[in-house]
Amino acid sequence: MRSDRSGQIVVIFLSIRTGADDAGYGAAAAAMESLAAAQPGYRGIESTRGTDGLGITLSFWADEASALQWRDHPEHKAIRDAGRDRWYQRYEVIVCAAQRSYAWEKG
Amino acid sequence: MRSDRSGQIVVIFLSIRTGADDAGYGAAAAAMESLAAAQPGYRGIESTRGTDGLGITLSFWADEASALQWRDHPEHKAIRDAGRDRWYQRYEVIVCAAQRSYAWEKG
Repeated sequence: MRSDRSGQIVVIFLSIRTGADDAGYGAAAAAMESLAAAQPGYRGIESTRGTDGLGITLSFWADEASALQWRDHPEHKAIRDAGRDRWYQRYEVIVCAAQRSYAWEKG
Repeated sequence: MRSDRSGQIVVIFLSIRTGADDAGYGAAAAAMESLAAAQPGYRGIESTRGTDGLGITLSFWADEASALQWRDHPEHKAIRDAGRDRWYQRYEVIVCAAQRSYAWEKG
């Protein structure tokens, strides 16, 4: 977690899994995190999935251009197709502009 | 999950719990969700926490004014103080403006 996100683009991905092909899903998710981290303008990923099946992944980008480049990356597109075929029951994507942020840690 | 978030304010809350006082935390979290849902401009909450301890909560607001009103709500402030005292090891808040969103569901 970091403290200064102002001006970044945040792509929020909410998803409910089908429960099918856990191994394939896990491998693809790890591969996508590595690939994203290698893209220009990448500023981080935070991801979690609860026991109720709701997953929330945040990816952070320096600007709109780098977020769009990632959306249009061929490998990312291919894995999204696989996701619709196999892994996801439903999902929602929300693209946001971060206006301000702050962090707190126990002293 | 919904599909049209454009123009909404999204408050992203990332947190790591201390592990202390699970019961108190659970009760407070449920009370805050109910209280938030009763505020003007409330547009929804999505929340999840993974087994690694990272929690992500998104609250959606009609506009900046309603998001600020919720931030400044006295009960919300009191519970944040309790959170720093007891429940959180660290957290990050990111306030964003949603630019576009879309949803997909398996047919």
